[in-house]
Amino acid sequence: MTNPEEVEWRSVCPISSALDVLGDKWSLLIIRDLLMHGTRTYSQFVGSRERISTNILAARLELLSCLKLIERTNPAGSPRNNAFQLTESGAALRPVLEGLGHWAHTHLAEFHDDIVSLP
Amino acid sequence: MTNPEEVEWRSVCPISSALDVLGDKWSLLIIRDLLMHGTRTYSQFVGSRERISTNILAARLELLSCLKLIERTNPAGSPRNNAFQLTESGAALRPVLEGLGHWAHTHLAEFHDDIVSLP
Repeated sequence: MTNPEEVEWRSVCPISSALDVLGDKWSLLIIRDLLMHGTRTYSQFVGSRERISTNILAARLELLSCLKLIERTNPAGSPRNNAFQLTESGAALRPVLEGLGHWAHTHLAEFHDDIVSLP
Repeated sequence: MTNPEEVEWRSVCPISSALDVLGDKWSLLIIRDLLMHGTRTYSQFVGSRERISTNILAARLELLSCLKLIERTNPAGSPRNNAFQLTESGAALRPVLEGLGHWAHTHLAEFHDDIVSLP
């Protein structure tokens, strides 16, 4: 997707609209990696422990760029635009990520013995 | 899924674990409907404006029940267990839903002309 007009909004509800963009298992992990783990480059994303596939990563990076949650940046010394950073919009998801993390640590520990708490 | 042990946890990260359960376009809308719209029965869920399909609804209700975010309840006068209510775990997702709604109203309005704010 290279055009925001291609997003199919299911309704006018803002929660539904957020999920139209972020409702999958990977998009918020990309935001997490940028926000909390210092991840910047394609190869760093692929190296994160949940092991995202390259085709899913490319598609999600494109959607998140198209909707201005992230933007490409030139890493020092590189002639290619192969790194990413959060925009204000993407960084504004921090409370959502923290809320999900706190919820899971409290309410999923019963089912997931090894779950850790947020740092 | 009828057994919580069938969930595939991708990592020990609580954010990733939350998305292992809730990372799709529908699960958090079911929680929204129970929490904010008074939805209780199967037919009420199907009637919500995003028009969830019956097979996705059935699968998500089973997963959410299995992980104790929701529970079946007997509506008055009905011999069948065909209604649902939130548990403490499911209700604890309110801040996450509100966070997603506020984020979308602020940051997606540029792309979605008709988006409304949370009530």
